[in-house]
Amino acid sequence: MEDTIAAVATAYGEGGIGIIRISGEDALLILNKVFQPMRKHINNSVITDKYEPDSVGVTIGESIVNRRLTYGHIIDYSTNQVLDEVLAVYMKAPYTYTKEDVVEINCHGSIVSLRKVLELVLRSGARMAEPGEFTKRAFLNGRLDLTQAEAVIDLIKAKSDKSFDVALGQLEGTLSDVIEQIRNLLMDELVNITVNIDYPDEDIEEITYDKLLNNLLQIDDMIQNLIRSADTGRIIKEGFKVAIVGKPNVGKSSLMNALLKENRAIVTDIPGTTRDTIVEDITIKKIPVKLIDTAGIHDTDDKVEKIGIEKSKATFNEADLVILILDGSQALSIEDENIMNVIGNRRTLVLINKIDLGQVLNEKKLQEKMPKALFIKTAVKNGQGINEIENKIEDLVFNGEVKQSGSTFITNVRHANLLNSAKTALDDAINMVRSGEALEFIEIDVKRTFEFLGEIIGETVSESIIDEVFSRFCLGK
Amino acid sequence: MEDTIAAVATAYGEGGIGIIRISGEDALLILNKVFQPMRKHINNSVITDKYEPDSVGVTIGESIVNRRLTYGHIIDYSTNQVLDEVLAVYMKAPYTYTKEDVVEINCHGSIVSLRKVLELVLRSGARMAEPGEFTKRAFLNGRLDLTQAEAVIDLIKAKSDKSFDVALGQLEGTLSDVIEQIRNLLMDELVNITVNIDYPDEDIEEITYDKLLNNLLQIDDMIQNLIRSADTGRIIKEGFKVAIVGKPNVGKSSLMNALLKENRAIVTDIPGTTRDTIVEDITIKKIPVKLIDTAGIHDTDDKVEKIGIEKSKATFNEADLVILILDGSQALSIEDENIMNVIGNRRTLVLINKIDLGQVLNEKKLQEKMPKALFIKTAVKNGQGINEIENKIEDLVFNGEVKQSGSTFITNVRHANLLNSAKTALDDAINMVRSGEALEFIEIDVKRTFEFLGEIIGETVSESIIDEVFSRFCLGK
Repeated sequence: MEDTIAAVATAYGEGGIGIIRISGEDALLILNKVFQPMRKHINNSVITDKYEPDSVGVTIGESIVNRRLTYGHIIDYSTNQVLDEVLAVYMKAPYTYTKEDVVEINCHGSIVSLRKVLELVLRSGARMAEPGEFTKRAFLNGRLDLTQAEAVIDLIKAKSDKSFDVALGQLEGTLSDVIEQIRNLLMDELVNITVNIDYPDEDIEEITYDKLLNNLLQIDDMIQNLIRSADTGRIIKEGFKVAIVGKPNVGKSSLMNALLKENRAIVTDIPGTTRDTIVEDITIKKIPVKLIDTAGIHDTDDKVEKIGIEKSKATFNEADLVILILDGSQALSIEDENIMNVIGNRRTLVLINKIDLGQVLNEKKLQEKMPKALFIKTAVKNGQGINEIENKIEDLVFNGEVKQSGSTFITNVRHANLLNSAKTALDDAINMVRSGEALEFIEIDVKRTFEFLGEIIGETVSESIIDEVFSRFCLGK
Repeated sequence: MEDTIAAVATAYGEGGIGIIRISGEDALLILNKVFQPMRKHINNSVITDKYEPDSVGVTIGESIVNRRLTYGHIIDYSTNQVLDEVLAVYMKAPYTYTKEDVVEINCHGSIVSLRKVLELVLRSGARMAEPGEFTKRAFLNGRLDLTQAEAVIDLIKAKSDKSFDVALGQLEGTLSDVIEQIRNLLMDELVNITVNIDYPDEDIEEITYDKLLNNLLQIDDMIQNLIRSADTGRIIKEGFKVAIVGKPNVGKSSLMNALLKENRAIVTDIPGTTRDTIVEDITIKKIPVKLIDTAGIHDTDDKVEKIGIEKSKATFNEADLVILILDGSQALSIEDENIMNVIGNRRTLVLINKIDLGQVLNEKKLQEKMPKALFIKTAVKNGQGINEIENKIEDLVFNGEVKQSGSTFITNVRHANLLNSAKTALDDAINMVRSGEALEFIEIDVKRTFEFLGEIIGETVSESIIDEVFSRFCLGK
């Protein structure tokens, strides 16, 4: 871990600025090799004072000033060729991203410039950083715990406000705090148990199984709450998938347009993004939502109707919610009933649409057919009911209670798995308490619970897991 | 021009770091509105001292230190919500890119983060910068002349080392220097002419038409040299287009592979770049070369042979050089002759290939058929002659003489057009000197020459031209 690493830290492509980041013991040494601050030029009378004479932050013979953004040139010392005009900064350890010496060189954001300068930096003693290696060092040097490090990549890849906010919260330590809190409570119980095992004859408060059970159940609840948040967490990270279905001319396109109009798409200006899929990304109440248009699925002739049904089923299985649109101004048709049969027991929001034309549809019969569905009366063409649809989606995502717990959500599969393992171990312990087993056995499972939680924050985690966590990163972070 | 502008300055996409750049009078004011340095947090006991306590560069009540990269949070003052963890820097006018106060905020390189922080900055008093507006201000504030400003965008868009180097030279002022030098010589003549017109009776050295002619011809030469470099300049910027042609099994693929193998492709890792076109980008002696494979063009049956010929002609017209491969171990075939007829008088390099199998091909007859072509004996499968091909390409690109003049090349169509206009005006003046016309008439055309050259560096240029120049820029530069 003693070597110095370097990589391009900005996104790949053409931009005004591109950054080369260097971290490690030799960062400053390398900077001094490749970087010539403007003032040196002036003193050598090589370049006239045309840019920023008293602002370069460097005096001849002195070292580069900590954290001062300094103007100058990157010069290949082997050929004396100027590679780029840059602003460079040196940040002294330990108050940096990696807790090591860090150098950042702001080049022109050209592919050629970044490649040339990076090549020179690598020739000058750095090695190419692996994906996530800067953040890995921040973790290994104790500046971030593992959940915080994992938050960095979620932050960068976030596609909606909500997923960004949750990742930022995790980076700031909200999840770590909850895990630590649970671990502290477990530690209290462990101490209690150990003392009772080791010094049964001493004059200490004797552990009662009732009290232990009570405390462990409370901890179990806290873990259960976190696990429950994983559903919402996944939605926040990947988007809430809504399939819109209904027979032709019932208002599917109008609904699609109404939702699209009010909820600006998040990812609009990525070059090359095409809109010829049937999925539209929108944000409803800051929640990323994927609208899956099933238009066409039912516009098939009889011969291929079977394919249509299979397609629908696949789409419905993928969806977190099915929105079924019915024409409220007409009686239920066979086509409607067919669709309802395909939907089956899936979570469904039924829109009784075209309500402005007068309701003919028998609502009671409908509720009997789909007892678990939610019903809303709408006239989507006039915008009537759109707000209610959005509120229902928000409610479904946050499940009521989970919504209260603020910004702590489990968005990471690794965390969810470890929480489940922790809960299983704790449940074992609880069952043993209930059946009055010996403290020695109970202790083992409480300890295991403690350790599973420690793995989440990276306290008791193997090297291979660390490697896997950071392999998900992009270069330069 | 008094308003403050802001934009994302890094390439669009996911990266470790993304930069928001702000320029103008209110830059510092806006930074103070949206940015909370870490130390303030510490003093408010909001966040504990876990990151870089004595390194943040800010003392409460004092202003942010010029050029010091400072750690802290971007906070939306309307909601008190933390938007991102950042490093921010304030650079005081006039020693900045735009000669105005500049602020750069290094956010997480996430689309969401950059959008959120930019939105907040815009709400706080900045307006969205137009493409190229930062560089436009650098030009209008006199830090860069127009050729230097134009170099910035060429630098960012450069795809090869050579095009980057030429743009960097232009940014450093090499082209401006040459133009200024010519303009100074013209100014000398103008002063001379004017004095002779205005004070014909004073005791000054009388202008002789011989001497004037001599001086103007010298200047004409200098302009001509620049114009001649435009051909090379275009190639440096856009690539030297080489069409490879020959009948089947003559060695086209081997040549293609040999050139590809030795000359690493420049643009290899842009996501989404596909290789299913017939053009391969390579770099030969730092020159960007586009290899156009005409394989298949002649593998057509008789019925569509006409289409094949039309296709070949179009390809040849587009190419800077045609490489014709012949099988040296066989006599010239009708197919070879057909291809030679289509090539016609175009600039051609003929490879007498498979020379290792013994030469049968009659070279003399060949040279009679293609008197202007260059000939090389090769055995591309063994690598024999590849080096010579590369040297020939380099020679052709640099035209011998132009190569000597270093890194000053006209790569910009605007410059080329203005140089041509300048030369036309100067030629008019020279003709008038030759025919002994009155100095008053000569003066007009020398002045026009002077002004055309002034337009290149932006000294005498209209607002609409400036707007057009900067509209080619990307956002954030």
